[in-house]
Amino acid sequence: MRIKESAERQYLEEVFSKLDFDQHDSQLLADTLVDADLRGISSHGIQRLAWYCRMIKDGTIIPQNKAKVIRERPGTILVDANQNMGQLATILATHKIIEKAKKTGVAIAVIRNSNHFGTAGYYTRLALKAGLVGIALTNTRPLVVPTNATQAFLGSNAFAFAFPATPHPFMFDGATCVVSGGKIQVHDKKNEPLPGEWAVDKNRKVVTDAQEAEDILATAAFTEGEQKGGGVLTLGGNSAANSNYKGMGNSIVIELLTGILAQGSISADTVSGKHDFSQFVMVFDPAFFGDPEVLKQDATSMLNRIRQLKHIPGKEIWIPGDREYRFLAENQEKGVSIDEKTYQEMKEIGAELNIHVPE
Amino acid sequence: MRIKESAERQYLEEVFSKLDFDQHDSQLLADTLVDADLRGISSHGIQRLAWYCRMIKDGTIIPQNKAKVIRERPGTILVDANQNMGQLATILATHKIIEKAKKTGVAIAVIRNSNHFGTAGYYTRLALKAGLVGIALTNTRPLVVPTNATQAFLGSNAFAFAFPATPHPFMFDGATCVVSGGKIQVHDKKNEPLPGEWAVDKNRKVVTDAQEAEDILATAAFTEGEQKGGGVLTLGGNSAANSNYKGMGNSIVIELLTGILAQGSISADTVSGKHDFSQFVMVFDPAFFGDPEVLKQDATSMLNRIRQLKHIPGKEIWIPGDREYRFLAENQEKGVSIDEKTYQEMKEIGAELNIHVPE
Repeated sequence: MRIKESAERQYLEEVFSKLDFDQHDSQLLADTLVDADLRGISSHGIQRLAWYCRMIKDGTIIPQNKAKVIRERPGTILVDANQNMGQLATILATHKIIEKAKKTGVAIAVIRNSNHFGTAGYYTRLALKAGLVGIALTNTRPLVVPTNATQAFLGSNAFAFAFPATPHPFMFDGATCVVSGGKIQVHDKKNEPLPGEWAVDKNRKVVTDAQEAEDILATAAFTEGEQKGGGVLTLGGNSAANSNYKGMGNSIVIELLTGILAQGSISADTVSGKHDFSQFVMVFDPAFFGDPEVLKQDATSMLNRIRQLKHIPGKEIWIPGDREYRFLAENQEKGVSIDEKTYQEMKEIGAELNIHVPE
Repeated sequence: MRIKESAERQYLEEVFSKLDFDQHDSQLLADTLVDADLRGISSHGIQRLAWYCRMIKDGTIIPQNKAKVIRERPGTILVDANQNMGQLATILATHKIIEKAKKTGVAIAVIRNSNHFGTAGYYTRLALKAGLVGIALTNTRPLVVPTNATQAFLGSNAFAFAFPATPHPFMFDGATCVVSGGKIQVHDKKNEPLPGEWAVDKNRKVVTDAQEAEDILATAAFTEGEQKGGGVLTLGGNSAANSNYKGMGNSIVIELLTGILAQGSISADTVSGKHDFSQFVMVFDPAFFGDPEVLKQDATSMLNRIRQLKHIPGKEIWIPGDREYRFLAENQEKGVSIDEKTYQEMKEIGAELNIHVPE
């Protein structure tokens, strides 16, 4: 089914208000989820609401808490999310570093004591709106098996990067491992086999049954103590001959820039204790390097040349962002897609909080 | 054969001096190549000398030119390498941003009008020596075929990242594509088949014959105008089902941060005209976020836990940097390995410039 963007937004704002977020925070949170759904990133849209509600109920997320700036320098800021939603702290931090980067040229933020922050791309788009280039990173639950290992340890660790271009920005946003846990969930829901080297079992044998993979991931992500084995592969797949250690390297870089720099939990340790995630955001001013319009044209020209390269007959060459902005145009017109299970959850939440559910 | 580090250094300093680099620049250049050979990265060591000599002879590299700072802000710097060796401009830029980051917390440099800059890791190690964390990027000749494309367009685009740890830093340094061109050359020299999904032909069929792959790469990297087809694969291999578009995304991010930001050539255009490369370096001060000793211990602890995960029997889990620092210890003691072909080239260069060649 589809519901209008405005109806989704209103529903979400009411839910978050009833959950004791103030009006401003409720609006921000609703915007991050609506934005994901509009862009076809439904794994990070309203589908997450029931999970957020559970974390609020069990005290993992505390809606009344305000994110705090711990310290700052002209180009850096350390923010304490104060056990509230990662979105709120990261929006605060991104706005702060945008102001800094306008003065110094570049700025970075590290956010500790945080939680899930939605799509990493959201914060790079905040940078774009301010005329800046942005990078956003987060660690996650432990899902990913390093090269030659048979246990999950690393997070799926998202990386987003946005750069101005026409007709839409270059927008790279996703898990650094071969696929996100969400993509395996979708195959499980649809009862479809996994088409590539996505997940392995405890003997590091590739798993193609989506439900078996989903069971392995759920166990890896939520089991305290010793891991039972198996998980998602790093980019590069199952074989070191295909350089899957480079995918591992990318994942570890994000562990260092998030959990380690923030002195919070690394992904492997988010299964217990505070369940805290950490984030890293960087923005810089491209206008320092050249006329922004020229840079934008140059980027556009390069991306168009890539789209037009000779290719496998019948296939298209997609640039990161192409799918997302196609969905955005379609969903702004027709409304966002909501799957049946998520709609049931919306109704349950609506009944519990006495809120009208869009139809 | 092996030669002592000191002998390699002296030979190189003399060669560069005879080629009209001043004494300071000759020492810097020698250090970058000796450092690569010591770390076992022989593809970027003295093996490159004959190629550098050719570029100096044909005027692509101009040894007398000095790199210039075009403009700077508290956190950013734009440097013109002035058609000299990329190493010299990037060393200058890195030292400048180290000073900036000590004041502001973070700084970035973009280098235009540059050339090959050796190993990307060299500049991240300069940052480490100053107590900072560093990232270094470069574009390259066009070698890499985007997802679904049948022509090379993207560079092999190196990414290096260093973070303090014990007994040695985390040191991730390499091409963003599945393997560097150099690794395919090595298999060709040894007459060994390619063991993974490394390269494709013009029909996007995986090539396992190293010589065939090497011919495809040489054509892609040095042919002006229309590409004949084929090249190195992005990380993720030949199939979009294994998310090779994520590898493409990583490569494009580097194109944007180097050639586009510098307003120089993108990798695809380095086959003609000025043959200019562009570089990007970022450094930040980890001490802003926490006690550097604590951060180092936390990183060490995480890396050790990864090394000790359950794994495939008989295999080891290597962390990026482990191989490099093992080579470093061995080569500092025994001397660096030089292959026969490179030693022949050293003798030819020695004869031409009237320089003693180490034995």
